[in-house]
Amino acid sequence: MANAIANITLSRLESLCDEAFRRAGLSAADAATGAAVLSTTDAWGVFTHGSKALRGYLRRLLAGGLRADGRPAVASSGPSFALVDGDSSLGMVTSVFAMELAIEKARQTGTAYVGVHNSCHFGAAGYYAAMAAHSGLIGLAMANDIPSVAAPGSRGAVTGSNPFAYAVPAGRYPPLLLDMSIATVAGGKVYAARERGEAIPFGWLIDDRGLPTDEAGAYPERATLTPAAGHKGYGLALLVESLSGALSGAAMTSAIRSWLGDDPGLPTLHGAAFLAIDPQAIAPDLPARIADLIDEIRAAPKADGVDRIYVPGEMEWERQAVARERGVALPPDVIASLREGTALVGLDLDDYLMAPGTAKELA
Amino acid sequence: MANAIANITLSRLESLCDEAFRRAGLSAADAATGAAVLSTTDAWGVFTHGSKALRGYLRRLLAGGLRADGRPAVASSGPSFALVDGDSSLGMVTSVFAMELAIEKARQTGTAYVGVHNSCHFGAAGYYAAMAAHSGLIGLAMANDIPSVAAPGSRGAVTGSNPFAYAVPAGRYPPLLLDMSIATVAGGKVYAARERGEAIPFGWLIDDRGLPTDEAGAYPERATLTPAAGHKGYGLALLVESLSGALSGAAMTSAIRSWLGDDPGLPTLHGAAFLAIDPQAIAPDLPARIADLIDEIRAAPKADGVDRIYVPGEMEWERQAVARERGVALPPDVIASLREGTALVGLDLDDYLMAPGTAKELA
Repeated sequence: MANAIANITLSRLESLCDEAFRRAGLSAADAATGAAVLSTTDAWGVFTHGSKALRGYLRRLLAGGLRADGRPAVASSGPSFALVDGDSSLGMVTSVFAMELAIEKARQTGTAYVGVHNSCHFGAAGYYAAMAAHSGLIGLAMANDIPSVAAPGSRGAVTGSNPFAYAVPAGRYPPLLLDMSIATVAGGKVYAARERGEAIPFGWLIDDRGLPTDEAGAYPERATLTPAAGHKGYGLALLVESLSGALSGAAMTSAIRSWLGDDPGLPTLHGAAFLAIDPQAIAPDLPARIADLIDEIRAAPKADGVDRIYVPGEMEWERQAVARERGVALPPDVIASLREGTALVGLDLDDYLMAPGTAKELA
Repeated sequence: MANAIANITLSRLESLCDEAFRRAGLSAADAATGAAVLSTTDAWGVFTHGSKALRGYLRRLLAGGLRADGRPAVASSGPSFALVDGDSSLGMVTSVFAMELAIEKARQTGTAYVGVHNSCHFGAAGYYAAMAAHSGLIGLAMANDIPSVAAPGSRGAVTGSNPFAYAVPAGRYPPLLLDMSIATVAGGKVYAARERGEAIPFGWLIDDRGLPTDEAGAYPERATLTPAAGHKGYGLALLVESLSGALSGAAMTSAIRSWLGDDPGLPTLHGAAFLAIDPQAIAPDLPARIADLIDEIRAAPKADGVDRIYVPGEMEWERQAVARERGVALPPDVIASLREGTALVGLDLDDYLMAPGTAKELA
């Protein structure tokens, strides 16, 4: 992020998303929810899952595959679980509803699982995990998706990239926060190498015979992403599929529709899972102990050339603090997508961007 | 496993562990629990965590660091959680107690978390996850340990290898079962390369400056294991630490004692976490849907030279079936450790091994 120049304030970015969602038919409350998720994700620097995705959501809202007036509702529940029918509403709306429910239930019993069906792409899993941690609970969030990652020994895609996130309250520090895909690297990294004409390390992709390749240009037509750490990432993918697909009543793997590529007039049928555990009832000293653990990790001897050892989420919280003060430097691909997306609902991105020359460096 | 020759039947292996534990002072019930865990683990082919570890447990039982008459007890509980004080009893005894409790609670409310403190090394995490799946529930099991794995940017060990396991019932098939450490590879793999005088791939180890090395001989004195997939394995390590250390009331990282290296007369203070989710209440069709998913994965196109795509746990269940019929081929390092361990309690391993020439090939 060094020397990046902000091009939009965080509040204007959130306003833009909010206005766009309202123009696409969402209620004020739902638009605000979607805008908060997307702008927070950009503030964290996770630009692949922030406002860049607005265009795709708006297309589906306008075409009806996402229902602007959809209302997530509890389909079944017990003391420490619930299933939520997302009613094809915006994935962020259903997911916030579901995690709020998981938090409420965990406060009653200690732990809770909430599974979601009839959802769509939900953006950054970490947002929902962080909701729990901001409320003092441990949170986990995950979702399934169309196949895009190989299994060990497969020739093509078998599982989704199945995001998995957790957050843990850390007392005097911001929560621990991990948001990972089960793939070795994101497809975006391969695209970037492809655009630069560079080879990639062996291990990121398999070719159309299922063998390792360093040819970025083969992706995605003739190559497939690999699971992180081989059988470990593949195994985690199936845990995510079990909890967010099989247990939630959602579609799985090839029965899910692509939220970007398939007919925007049809529901995508994604599933998701949200778990919350309440330390207040179990071990109220947990946040303080996590803070001490963070101190211990930070004080550990560092590798040559390394100044800091980060804990999961630390970079994101620091970027968010900078974003609140100085704004966000949306990368060119995000700007392009956001311009096109907001134009779909008659908005002009330039009305929201900072005037050139007025922004400060972010680093 | 091809062409391996069995050297002990599964029932004799279990009897040996059972008798050894009883001679070390365990009750018949506790000895049977410990023996079942260790022999099942060997039957799965996970020889690093099976009866090879008996020697270390017996040493601690004889020296008092593990209490032969220790009794795990519920320290606190709520509708969907409990904390268990392991009373420094054998890790397998406490862990089976804790997972049984998690299953019972999840059947009441849908989900449950049981954290354990005052435990010790608990063997293969997958055993406890599989207990839940054999009872029709989704199970997760994990534990913390002394630091042995680096963090991104560290010079030495920061987190434990923190095993993480899950199991999911799969209807007409054996459960999905993943049991992974958060390290790139197990230390045993590095030792094996060291013994053969071979270099290892860059990425497995960092040297004493924190930089990647391919020198197996530097481990463990001047090198440290890396986390699987870098920040992903590191992040998962801290999730495991949060749930099995901070939330359970157990010791964490450097406050834990080595179950192998430290004074066997002192408790090790390990923690563990067990989670159960009951599909019966939430989605009774889950096992059938997982079975269909397994069929889909098995039918996926295979890489050149690959005959089968395995699902997590499939190799272990197949090895267990062979072990039940034909016995187990304990590797030389296990035989040596088991011989020494059982001699501590006056047993002769040769009384339990198959007579040479009587065994069948396992493959």
